[in-house]
Amino acid sequence: MIELKKIGIVKSTRREIRDDNWDSENSYIELDLEQFDSSSLEGLTDFSHAEIIFYMDQVKTEKIVTKARHPRNNKQWPKVGIFAQRTKNRPNRIGLCICKVQKVEENRLYLEGLDAIDNTPVLDIKPWVQEFGPRGEKRQPSWISELMLGYWSSDE
Amino acid sequence: MIELKKIGIVKSTRREIRDDNWDSENSYIELDLEQFDSSSLEGLTDFSHAEIIFYMDQVKTEKIVTKARHPRNNKQWPKVGIFAQRTKNRPNRIGLCICKVQKVEENRLYLEGLDAIDNTPVLDIKPWVQEFGPRGEKRQPSWISELMLGYWSSDE
Repeated sequence: MIELKKIGIVKSTRREIRDDNWDSENSYIELDLEQFDSSSLEGLTDFSHAEIIFYMDQVKTEKIVTKARHPRNNKQWPKVGIFAQRTKNRPNRIGLCICKVQKVEENRLYLEGLDAIDNTPVLDIKPWVQEFGPRGEKRQPSWISELMLGYWSSDE
Repeated sequence: MIELKKIGIVKSTRREIRDDNWDSENSYIELDLEQFDSSSLEGLTDFSHAEIIFYMDQVKTEKIVTKARHPRNNKQWPKVGIFAQRTKNRPNRIGLCICKVQKVEENRLYLEGLDAIDNTPVLDIKPWVQEFGPRGEKRQPSWISELMLGYWSSDE
């Protein structure tokens, strides 16, 4: 077993589990002051984006998929392996999102486009760096582009 | 405490800790057959890239930085917070890399550009998806572009 400790928590206007319309929400990360202080975030606003790695502890373990399934159980889309889709119902329940960095205020990092619900434990924050890619030609299947159509769009 | 279980391990030609020249190496991930089988990777080769989240267990805990430091201890670069740099000496020791998907053979996922050493435990594999961004204007400070100059380049 691998033991990790949350570095902070997500504070978000989204309080229930829901898949789409994440641009309707506002959120920030509050760093744990027992481990960190404002210096831990120094220089982050020189980057336009940050990668947030979080632990989706509200996902029920009995829902976790390990083999293959139709994304969102939609039979119009192909059955694909758990590691070929980004569903939250996954081994280790780790979420990953590239967010726009808005501002830092003391131990709070304000973000745009974080797809994590209120009180989600945060595992890491990394600056987004161009050279980390993707490098080379990019390609993805059509089903994921269809799935993503409502993912960000605000529901107002 | 958050308890995670590795989903597999990295097999890489890089066996020691070193920062640069990752394009010199070949690597694959071997999924744990007690939890997964080849169906867990079904459809992943329809994506050009995958995001690999791994646990850098070889990093010594006494080296972990929580506040601010000069990246690679280079005083020519500004002192920045641990969450504004991507050093391995970080809380929770989580690594994240976008790799080119080469091929899948049974429970093995062959990758290009994975910056993890041999036997590193893997926590998650996600397909890289265009819509996950970064969205909007991109910006990063010059020190990180300088640091990245030798990161990928092969040392041969």
